[in-house]
Amino acid sequence: MSQSFTPISSLGEFGLIDRMQSRLADIPRSENLIVGIGDDAAVYRAGDTKLHVVTTDVLIEGVHFDRTFIPTSYLGWKAIAVNVSDVVAMNAKPLYATVSAGLPRNFSVEMMDGLYDGMAEACKAYGMELVGGDTSTAHALYLSITVIGEVDEKDVVFRRGANVGDYLCLSGDVGGAYAGLKVLLDQREQLENMGDSYEPDLEAFQYVIRRQLRPKARLDVIEGLKKAGVRPTSMIDVSDGVASEVHHIGLRSGVGATVRVPAVPFDPETRAVADQFMDDVDAYALFGGEDYELLFTVAPEDVQAIDDMEGVSVIGTIEEAAKGVRAYSPDTGLMPLHPAGYQHFDGPPQTDYETFDGEEGPSFDDTEFSGDGA
Amino acid sequence: MSQSFTPISSLGEFGLIDRMQSRLADIPRSENLIVGIGDDAAVYRAGDTKLHVVTTDVLIEGVHFDRTFIPTSYLGWKAIAVNVSDVVAMNAKPLYATVSAGLPRNFSVEMMDGLYDGMAEACKAYGMELVGGDTSTAHALYLSITVIGEVDEKDVVFRRGANVGDYLCLSGDVGGAYAGLKVLLDQREQLENMGDSYEPDLEAFQYVIRRQLRPKARLDVIEGLKKAGVRPTSMIDVSDGVASEVHHIGLRSGVGATVRVPAVPFDPETRAVADQFMDDVDAYALFGGEDYELLFTVAPEDVQAIDDMEGVSVIGTIEEAAKGVRAYSPDTGLMPLHPAGYQHFDGPPQTDYETFDGEEGPSFDDTEFSGDGA
Repeated sequence: MSQSFTPISSLGEFGLIDRMQSRLADIPRSENLIVGIGDDAAVYRAGDTKLHVVTTDVLIEGVHFDRTFIPTSYLGWKAIAVNVSDVVAMNAKPLYATVSAGLPRNFSVEMMDGLYDGMAEACKAYGMELVGGDTSTAHALYLSITVIGEVDEKDVVFRRGANVGDYLCLSGDVGGAYAGLKVLLDQREQLENMGDSYEPDLEAFQYVIRRQLRPKARLDVIEGLKKAGVRPTSMIDVSDGVASEVHHIGLRSGVGATVRVPAVPFDPETRAVADQFMDDVDAYALFGGEDYELLFTVAPEDVQAIDDMEGVSVIGTIEEAAKGVRAYSPDTGLMPLHPAGYQHFDGPPQTDYETFDGEEGPSFDDTEFSGDGA
Repeated sequence: MSQSFTPISSLGEFGLIDRMQSRLADIPRSENLIVGIGDDAAVYRAGDTKLHVVTTDVLIEGVHFDRTFIPTSYLGWKAIAVNVSDVVAMNAKPLYATVSAGLPRNFSVEMMDGLYDGMAEACKAYGMELVGGDTSTAHALYLSITVIGEVDEKDVVFRRGANVGDYLCLSGDVGGAYAGLKVLLDQREQLENMGDSYEPDLEAFQYVIRRQLRPKARLDVIEGLKKAGVRPTSMIDVSDGVASEVHHIGLRSGVGATVRVPAVPFDPETRAVADQFMDDVDAYALFGGEDYELLFTVAPEDVQAIDDMEGVSVIGTIEEAAKGVRAYSPDTGLMPLHPAGYQHFDGPPQTDYETFDGEEGPSFDDTEFSGDGA
């Protein structure tokens, strides 16, 4: 073994993915593998006209969640939902899940029941089955889930298909999960400062807290699109924030994009949280992560069908690559939209559990390399 | 949430699996799912004549391995191999792997390179591809791998197909991985007692140490069986020890079995280790885990073909369920063979890293419930 010790944090997220890919480069490619590393899920042939997709996502205590915030049933639900979200981002239907669970010593049978109840509830909601797994003692609670899905070959959607002139669309509203995290972290701080005399007001921010703790995968949106006869030209799920995901589509499709900031929807409760913290709500909507909405592009002839769909917004247009990814708002005009926040705003909301916990580890945090690190 | 706190260790391994299955019981079953929880891997239809299989297995630092023992490239290899072993136990060929990796703060880029080199080497050796994953900061090093494999519907082998009169067969030799663990643990103890003046003699026990740190999945054996025109009636991989796996086949197939102890093969180095520790080498062979050989049954008409194969032994016969699982040796005659050691021997080798580490956690350790906990 090499005697050098280079910290992983020195690579950065994309450096880490590049490094891993380089170590895996000389594995021979199978003709049945259509997409490996580099999209929301890997895609391979399974039968004459069917493709299967597979994705893996982990939630680790202290990195992705704080056990004092989240009931175990929500955690079980969320661990399934975030994987289903990657599957539906390929326009595929989830079928099977396996779970690798690490349970620490201070985890009870009752907590485990909650965890599996939450997973079972999510499996039922998304019409899939939990078919196997591995449960082990661990130092901290973690849930690593793999979900396999299916899609007709003619229906599969990648990140790479956006064309100049397409419209950029978004399901639901964004920024809520980030707002929920802000509320939870603030309440933890208040509790630490004020002790038992502090009574958290969870009622006031139910919607955003639920967006953070029990997100939904938008299987209903791809079903709605199918019903409307619309096949997106490209698609990605919003796990790292709208701005970051627009960049992923741009990079993979070889295009630029303009996001119309006033068109990016957020919930009134998200605005209330931003106001309370004197933050810009547009920053929550553009850069907040973990909303698990779908960001996709459609051809111009399909935009009328999108306008007719409830709960889907047209938020921008696809342009030449040379124009880059830009944001337009009446106040500021056109300006570059950086993946993780821009200077105009008072600092991007890069909050995660880890930075709040202090010295929890290197900054790579979580690099999902089935998905460009998104 | 319930206010009760029942320790998970109180459930026991099978209690834990039952409990998890009960929480998942009311998820509707898909007609394409052939086997879910309850075999080495889950099996589902993928095309007209093809079945896919999927399995998940985790290796966690301090539970399944000691980082001071195992080079990261071996760990990467082993994490893939133990999953491939479950796939080949279904008589299937591995195709795709996803990896969920948790990297602690004291893990370097160089160590990560080793990890991915080891995984890449295993993928090449088994003709498969690493198609995606998720890498995160974690409290301790862990690797949770999912492998998807493929098998023609007519070739799939379950645990449940053994018939009375079949022969019980075993690939390779067993007890070596356990002997290797004994050597490594002993050397750690010596190092702790003697400090730097102790020089471990790794040369003397290379074979058994390699069996422990870099096990092979026996894809070659199922290829050999196919070539010989033999389809086993049941099959399982030996991860928990021969005795335990015979019980799994017996339970699933509704049969009993007699294992002829002198027929269970071990390597001379395994005997040398047992001798050194004044242990019974047959206990290593029957109860030692992690050999990842294949235990399978064949119909009487196929036993000649098995005799002609190199590296496969006939170690017993399948009998009526009422007879239970028994061991025969000339010294002791017929006696019950318990899954985890019998009193005749001087205590079963139930060693794992955890019991050696002291108070590391509850006793369920590792419950792979895609595989009856085996």
